[in-house]
Order: sequence, then structure tokens, then C-alpha cells
Amino acid sequence: MSLLYKNISDRIYQMVQEGAFSHGKRLPSIRDLSLQFQVSIGTVVQAYADLERRGIIQSRPQSGFYLSEDFQLIPQERLLSNLNKSKYQTAPQKVKLSELLQTVTLSARDSKTIPLGAANPSVDLLPAISLNRVMNKCLRQSKELSIHYDYPPGDFRLRKELSYRSTQWGCSILPSDFIITFGAMESITLALRAITKPGDVVAVESPCYFGILHAMESLGLRALEVPSDPQFGVQVDLLRENLKRYKLKAILLTPNFNNPLGSLIPDDHKKELARLSRQYEIPIIENDVMGDLYFGKNRPRTIKSYDKDGLVVLVSSFSKTLAPGYRVGWTSPGRYYDPIVQLKFTSSGGTATLNQFAVFEYMKTGAYDRHLTRFRPLLKSNLDEFTRAVIRHFPTGSKVSTPEGGYLLWVELPKQINSLDLHQKALQERISIVPGSLFSVTEHYRNYIRLNCANPWTPKIESAIKTLGNITASSLTE
Amino acid sequence: MSLLYKNISDRIYQMVQEGAFSHGKRLPSIRDLSLQFQVSIGTVVQAYADLERRGIIQSRPQSGFYLSEDFQLIPQERLLSNLNKSKYQTAPQKVKLSELLQTVTLSARDSKTIPLGAANPSVDLLPAISLNRVMNKCLRQSKELSIHYDYPPGDFRLRKELSYRSTQWGCSILPSDFIITFGAMESITLALRAITKPGDVVAVESPCYFGILHAMESLGLRALEVPSDPQFGVQVDLLRENLKRYKLKAILLTPNFNNPLGSLIPDDHKKELARLSRQYEIPIIENDVMGDLYFGKNRPRTIKSYDKDGLVVLVSSFSKTLAPGYRVGWTSPGRYYDPIVQLKFTSSGGTATLNQFAVFEYMKTGAYDRHLTRFRPLLKSNLDEFTRAVIRHFPTGSKVSTPEGGYLLWVELPKQINSLDLHQKALQERISIVPGSLFSVTEHYRNYIRLNCANPWTPKIESAIKTLGNITASSLTE
Repeated sequence: MSLLYKNISDRIYQMVQEGAFSHGKRLPSIRDLSLQFQVSIGTVVQAYADLERRGIIQSRPQSGFYLSEDFQLIPQERLLSNLNKSKYQTAPQKVKLSELLQTVTLSARDSKTIPLGAANPSVDLLPAISLNRVMNKCLRQSKELSIHYDYPPGDFRLRKELSYRSTQWGCSILPSDFIITFGAMESITLALRAITKPGDVVAVESPCYFGILHAMESLGLRALEVPSDPQFGVQVDLLRENLKRYKLKAILLTPNFNNPLGSLIPDDHKKELARLSRQYEIPIIENDVMGDLYFGKNRPRTIKSYDKDGLVVLVSSFSKTLAPGYRVGWTSPGRYYDPIVQLKFTSSGGTATLNQFAVFEYMKTGAYDRHLTRFRPLLKSNLDEFTRAVIRHFPTGSKVSTPEGGYLLWVELPKQINSLDLHQKALQERISIVPGSLFSVTEHYRNYIRLNCANPWTPKIESAIKTLGNITASSLTE
Repeated sequence: MSLLYKNISDRIYQMVQEGAFSHGKRLPSIRDLSLQFQVSIGTVVQAYADLERRGIIQSRPQSGFYLSEDFQLIPQERLLSNLNKSKYQTAPQKVKLSELLQTVTLSARDSKTIPLGAANPSVDLLPAISLNRVMNKCLRQSKELSIHYDYPPGDFRLRKELSYRSTQWGCSILPSDFIITFGAMESITLALRAITKPGDVVAVESPCYFGILHAMESLGLRALEVPSDPQFGVQVDLLRENLKRYKLKAILLTPNFNNPLGSLIPDDHKKELARLSRQYEIPIIENDVMGDLYFGKNRPRTIKSYDKDGLVVLVSSFSKTLAPGYRVGWTSPGRYYDPIVQLKFTSSGGTATLNQFAVFEYMKTGAYDRHLTRFRPLLKSNLDEFTRAVIRHFPTGSKVSTPEGGYLLWVELPKQINSLDLHQKALQERISIVPGSLFSVTEHYRNYIRLNCANPWTPKIESAIKTLGNITASSLTE
């Protein structure tokens, strides 16, 4: 699906990011690039047009291409990936988060609030009209379809389609190995219920998506937080040490574009994680909800692709990529299939019939892939805009993540900032964000915030980021 | 909603059932009835036409109305309600059912099987076309609606509509007291998770819907089965004794048209149950999924209507009345609101947006009430047909329930019959039923079966019942 000119414009952008071209310095000519990359002149013209559209370069008549005057390079010291690797270590802790979470989530539901908080993509970026058309088609196709109860494990056609696609994730999962659920969150809770008992210890990444911590709290579990690298995800050597030290019941990871870091676990680490899972016979619950939203050349693999023993419970959904309101997700639970399908029966019964069928139809016609082909660069360009705006408007000492996919930005603020205060003040300005404190059962991320960048980039959004920056700056001098 | 002529035809049918008119005896003339009931001639004509349509009476020219020749009175000894009240008592038992359940449910999913098993109404009896039309309207109304994520507690308009309707159940529940869920099963599981811990004892009716026992098994609970009367539901005096004897954590009841009995707990018993709940401070989880499917004059009240302390968690859904495949249910959880809404977040997140909205729209336009007005007598007439067929085709010693609502029939077979064997043999004939063994953690209902009568009454169905009767009879002589 990836386009040639896109590869080239991304490569040049990367060079720009890493400082290859400073302001005022002419970029290579179209002819030079065409020779260098061994592509046609037309392709290079397209690549440069793409970079111009993204506000990264501008052409000067009679002279050539230059960095856009507005374009600000992100200084190395503003990159979160430039941090020293965190080695902090905590013992397993009982998860207790829900009061804080309630305050934060309930306050952000006002439709007049600028939604930089919850990690749902804006409906304006999603293919509402074509999805509605497909649902309509499904309704016409069979008058009783929507009413008919569909037992777990769910629609066979959808499971066949997922099976077909699993090769993209490095797997070859059979249709009969899938269970359709009401979203990844249901899959994760069912997996935890099947694998653990209250009081058990589960290793998670740190920072960790608060929804996962919340689910663990509701099940009375203890979290062992293993520090993650902003670029490469969970630190495998630290996890290995913990496997020796503690009796873990499960490992819960989001290897592809972790929420909130956007980090991507490299393939050799994924392989090693699968090996550790086998060695200690400890299941890995692998959350891949962002996996389709990659910015690189290829769809990243899963840990599941290295799993030979059915120890990896892969879970995902269409909530981040297509339709949050449909509530269609799935799991491929390996050796935990039986207990999980039983729990699915008693937890919520079958998944909604029409919703499953519409997702299947949307994929079958190729519309899902076409949507993703447009969606991914849009998210990348949004993340770039957000990043630049944060750098521009936030006080010195702030740092941002450099996600490899997805649409979330993780921002480190100066040490003095309490993100819970910031959250309150932002809400008064009708801007919702998620304070870092929610991403751990410890106090580690008190001075961090997470921003949802899956909103159309508008002056209103830029102004919201400016406001956030100002609030942060004024908190510093209080 | 109930029609005058319907009241009269039902009353006459009741008289017929209780033996007031034997074969060959002329029924009262239209004029006599009009005087007796103080209604117009036209209303009586309608009532007789209704009884004729239902195959209960027939007119003989120049003579008047008589019992239909085909019509067979159910002899008193064939009525389950004629049983002596069961007083058997068992201690709380760990629930362990799922293997048996899996065999039974998985085997019944073949679309070529005659579905007398699972308690889903046939799509042929449901308003598929008008529901589809409403869903279409919802899709046109707002292009993003279906995609938008709707947080728990769910769509406000739907909750307002439920609040409005709650007066019909004898309640006055606020919109803010409802949580929308993926069906009653999700509501029940969330309630059990909020209220109990593994090992706790929950009192249930006996026989008890196997889905509830399955949910209890998945949560490691123990069931205390309190015998139910086939007409009046759970025996309150026995429950009272058990409240003294055991430390119960919750009471889980289906007062209106219990699955499988079809029994209806009388109002004074409901009131007493609410009082006991208060006295012992033990919550009641009240499952009202069949409540709208009453055959009597009025919509039955709920135990919740007598609850002053928020101890009753009322749960229901639209799966039995409107659209099993939509997966829209709800709970009004009283004082357990907070823990249940938290669990809803982590168990499955928001409920599917479009599905909620379509149900709301369908109710708002009055279409739901119109559907129920047609649906209830249809179910009643189906139950009558099924009952007559069972009486006709099953061996002596078989007894049937006399449901006051819903669409399930509970059939007692001669003691020698093992309903699990019967289930196997029936499946070979492509007929699915549910063996009684699933309705208890004890062996009490080994010689019972449950029949789903929400199928259009056809010669094929009648022949299926005949086949079941023959299999039963031949099992007796084996």
C-alpha cells in the first residue's frame, strides 16, 4: 500500500528532523534526488509537493526548495527519546486509580470541550459516510440480519477476514482461533479474568494506559510496572530481572505504538519476549489496537508472530482505526481460548450482529485499506503539527515523544508542574487533556500529560495548545 | 394498551381451560355475553372471532358457538401447576455446569435445526423491517452518530425513555439511575461482580435459567437453590428460612415469567421480598427481561417498585422483546450504581451507539408498543398451540407449565426419562431442546425439558413436537 513518493518525502523529512538541512540551506535539486533514489522526476516532484503541503519545505522561484520559514526543527533536547533510560524499580503495587480516573473522564465529556484527552479519533477523520453506506447495504441485504442473535465466538465471515489479515502481523491465525468481542477492553478484561485471580501480579509497561490499570484494579490485581523506553518500548532486560524476582501471572504489553508513548518494540525484542514467555510459562496479553496505524514502511509484527506455544493472547479492535462507537474488537487467545469464550458467554453474550457484519463488509470491499492509506499520513502530519506547536508554546524544559505510529503525544513538563492542577486549569479553558498521574500506580508521571492528536489540525487546536503552554508557563512562576 | 375484546376472549378461554364448557356444549350467545360483561355486541363478536382464530371455538350455522372439535382441554393432571409444592432443600453448592452447557449450546447452532432450545424469539416474529427502517433513519439523521463513542452510562435519550416507562413497572426511576449495557446478561454479571466475591452464596430460584448459573460458575459463586412454585414463583417462606440459616450475599430472581417456569410472583410476595431484602440488608438482583411479555391485563410490577433502600438491582434488555442481535440492555442498580458503572467501563466500555439510538427511536415513535400489542397475543397463542401439541403427543405422565407470560414451556416427563439422552436423540432428528439438568446444580430436573415457543406455529413445528413425544415414549419402553 505504501507509495514510492511517500517513502522519499518521509526519508527527507527524517533527514530534516535529524538536522541534515538547516534554514536557508537549499535542498537537493529534483534531478539530483531522482538520480540518488533511482526514481522518476515525477516521483520526486510528488515527494517535494507532499513536503510543501505538510509545511516542511517551500519553493523559492528560480532558486529551488528550502526549509519552510515557519518550520521549526525539534531540538534534540526537546525529544523525549533523548532521555536516559529510566531504571527505577518498584515492587508490585495494588492498583487503586478509579476515583482519580472518574474525575478526569467525567469532566471531559462536554461536547464543547476541545478533546485532547480521551484517545478516540475525531469522527471528522473517520469514514462516516462510506461506513454508513455499508451498514445500509447490510440492512438491505438481509432483513433479519441485524436482529438475529450471533453466538460467541462471533461472525464466521469476520473471523475469516481477520485470519486472512493475520499474515500482515506475521501470524497465521485460523478463523477458529478468533473470538469477536465488544472491543479490545473487553478482550483484555476477559483475558485477565481467565488467567489471573485477585491478588496476582501482572507486569505492565510504565507508563501504562490507564484503562488497563483500571481493569486491573477492578479485578483486584497488583501491577508491576516495568519502565519503557520512549522509542523501543518495555525494557526487556528489566523485565527479565523481574521474571526472576517475582511470581508473575501475566505480562500485559502494547508493543506497537504504546499508549501513551507511541513506542515500537523492535522485532528482536519481540522475539525475546516470546522466548521469555515460553521459558517462564507466563502468558503475554498483547494489545495491538494501534498496530494498523504505523508510519513506517511496513505493518509491524506482533509478539504473537513469535509464539509457538499459544502463550500470547493477542487482542485488538476497530475502535482506534475505524469506528469507536461500533464496539467491535477481537482476541486470538491461544491456549486460553476455552476459558475466554466461556467468560464471553456470561459477560455479555454474543457481539452485536450488524456491527460485526458491517466491519466485515467494509474490509471485504477494500474500503478499510483505502481508509488506512489516507488515515496514516493524516495522523502523522497531525502529530507533526502538534509536536511543533508544543515546542513553540511550551516552556523550556518540556519534552515530547516521537511516536512511530498512532496519534498520541506524551509530553514531559518541567518537574515543578503537577499535571492534575494543569488538567483542572485546562478544563476551565474548555480543553481536556489526560494528566500523567493516571498512567501509573506510582507518582512517576506527575509532570507529564498525554495529548490526543487525532483531531483535524485547525487554528482553534493550535490556540488550545498555546493556552496549555501558557498555563504551564504561568504555573512555573506561581 | 390492552383491548376490551381481548380481555373477554381471554376470560372465556380461562373458563374453557378450567372446564366451564365441555365439548358439544353451546357457549353463551353473543347477546348474553354482551349483557354479562356490559360491553357492546360488536366487542363480543370480536372476542368470539378471536377465539375462533385461535382454534379454541368454532361456530355452527344456525346454532351458535362450540368448543372446536380439535381443541383438547388440558386435563388438570397434565398441568405442572397442579404439582404439590416442592419443599426439597439443599445446601449451597459450587456451580459447575459449563461443560454440559457447551455440549448443549454448541450443538444447537445449526441453522437447519428446529430451534426449540435457546430462548431467542424467532426473527420471523420480530419487526425486522420496521426496525431496519428506523436504523436507516438514524444513519441519515447524523452521519457521525454510529461512529461516535458513547461513554457509560449510555445514551441519555434512551435513559430518559426508560425513566418514562418505569412507571409501568411501578417505579419512578430517574434517567441518571440507569446504565445501558450489552444486554441483561452483562447487567447480571456486572451486578454479581459488584456485590459478591468468589465463594459467596447467592440464592436463586429452582429451576433457574442456566445462563445465570453459568455466570455464577464463572465468578466462583455458590448457589442456594430455593424451590419455585410453577405459578407463583419462588417460595417466599422457604427463602425466609434460608435467610436465617445461611449468610447470603445476594438474591437473584426473575419474578415476571421466570425462565423456564413462566411463573409470576404475586404482588404481595414481591412486597414481602423487598421487605426481607431490607430486613437482612441483602440486595436482590431482579431480572425483568420477560416483564413486557405479559398475557394478563396489566404490565406486572417489579420488586424494585417496593424497594425504598436502593437494594434492588433491576436488570432487563430488548433481547427477548425486540432484537436479540442488537445487544442493548440496561440496569437500574440502586445503591450499587458506582461500582457497576466502573465495572462497565473496564468490562466492555460504552455500549454500541447506533444500537442504543435505534432502540430509543423505535420506542419514541410508539412502534415498540405497537409491536408488543401484536407480539403478546401471538406468543400466547403459540404457547397454547405448543401446550396442546405436547398434551397430544407426549406419553401419559408428562406435565406442562401454564406460563402467565413470555414464550417458554417447561415440560415434566415421566421419571424414567433422562433429558440429556432425549436431547441427544432429538438433535439427531435436527430438533434442539434444552434438557432440564441445566437448570440446577443438583439432579432435580433430569426428567424435564424446556421448549422455546417463540416460533411461528407451523405443521413442521407440530411434527417436531410429535417426534419429541415419540422419542420420549420409546425411551420409556427401552
